Amino acid sequence: LLLYDSPVSGNCYKVRLLLAQLGREVERRELSVVDRSDRMVLGRLNPALRIPTMVLDDGRPLAESNAILWYFADGSEYVPQDPYERAKVLQWMFFEQCDHEPTIAAVRFWVAFAATPPPAEVIEARRAAGYRALDTLERGLGRSPFLVAGRYTIADIALYAYTHVAGEGGFSLERYPAIGEWLARVVAQPRHIAISD
Amino acid sequence: LLLYDSPVSGNCYKVRLLLAQLGREVERRELSVVDRSDRMVLGRLNPALRIPTMVLDDGRPLAESNAILWYFADGSEYVPQDPYERAKVLQWMFFEQCDHEPTIAAVRFWVAFAATPPPAEVIEARRAAGYRALDTLERGLGRSPFLVAGRYTIADIALYAYTHVAGEGGFSLERYPAIGEWLARVVAQPRHIAISD
Repeated sequence: LLLYDSPVSGNCYKVRLLLAQLGREVERRELSVVDRSDRMVLGRLNPALRIPTMVLDDGRPLAESNAILWYFADGSEYVPQDPYERAKVLQWMFFEQCDHEPTIAAVRFWVAFAATPPPAEVIEARRAAGYRALDTLERGLGRSPFLVAGRYTIADIALYAYTHVAGEGGFSLERYPAIGEWLARVVAQPRHIAISD
Repeated sequence: LLLYDSPVSGNCYKVRLLLAQLGREVERRELSVVDRSDRMVLGRLNPALRIPTMVLDDGRPLAESNAILWYFADGSEYVPQDPYERAKVLQWMFFEQCDHEPTIAAVRFWVAFAATPPPAEVIEARRAAGYRALDTLERGLGRSPFLVAGRYTIADIALYAYTHVAGEGGFSLERYPAIGEWLARVVAQPRHIAISD
C-alpha cells in the first residue's frame, strides 16, 4: 500500500489511523498542503488531485478519505453489518465532508498553515459555520458513547480527525461536553495513533 | 416512505430520481431552501437540520442525500458488487459533496434563488472553483460512458443532480464534451424523471 500523504492533513490521518488499527502497513509519500505545485504526480491516480490518494497493492488508485476508510474497514469491526447502521455511518461521513471539514479544517488551515490566509471577516464567518457543525455533532452524540450503533466505527474516525485539532483553528470545545467525552473515548481505543505519529 | 423535500434542491432530486428508478413510492413534504425557519421540524430526525431527510416505513430517520442513495440502492443494479468498484462509487459521491456541490450548487442557489446573495466577487471566486470541479468530472469521465464500472450507478445520479442545472448558476458546459455526452446518457436511462417532475 502506498499513501500520498501529509502529516498535518486530518483527511490523511483518518486513513493512517484506520490502517494502524487494522494492523496494515503503509508506505507514506509526502505532498505539501501549502505548495500544491507537486500535485500533478496524482494526475492519473486521482482526477481531483487531492490527498489522501491511495495506491493499492495491485496498482489501482483510490481517493477521498472517507471512501478509503470504507474500502478498508468494510467487513471489519469498524463498519456495522446492519443496512440502516451502515447508512448512518455514511450519513455522518457525508456530513463531515459537507459541513464539518469545509469549516473546521478550512479555518485551521488558514490560521495554522496558509501562506496567504483570507481576510479576518472571511475566517470569522467560516468559524461561525464551524461552530454550527460542532453544534450538530454535539446534538448527534447526545447520550451515545459513539456516533452509530453505540460503538466505535469509521464514522468516529472521520469526525475525530479534524475535531480533535479544532483548537489549532481557534475553536473552543469547552461548551461541548458530549464531544469532549467522545474525543477521550476515541483516544482510548486499541491501537490508537496520534496525528503526529 | 416520507421525504422532507424541496422541488428545486438537487440533493432532494437525487433521492426522488433513484426511488423512481427503483419503482418506490414516496410521500413528499416540502420545506423551503430560502426561508429556513421551518427547519426545526427536522430536529429529532436530522441533527444537521437539512433536506433531504427521509423517514423510513418503520419511523427511523436517515439524512444526507448520498447516504440515502446508498441505503436504497445497495443490492440493486445501481451499486456494484465488487469492493473496489463500490469504493469508487463512494469516491465520486464524496467528491460531489466536498468539491462539486459546495461550488456548483452554491452558485446556482445564489444566482437563481437566494434573497440576499453575497457580493459578485464572492460568487465569481466560487464559480471558478466550480469550473475546477467540472474539470475534475471531465477528466474522471475520460472515455468511459459512466463514472464507475462502465455502467449507470448512484455515482452518476449524485453527480448528475447539480451538473445538469449548472447553467442556472451561469456555468457554461460547452467546453466539456465528455460531460455533455454523459448527461444525455443519464437522461436516457429507464424510468428517468426530471427535477421538475
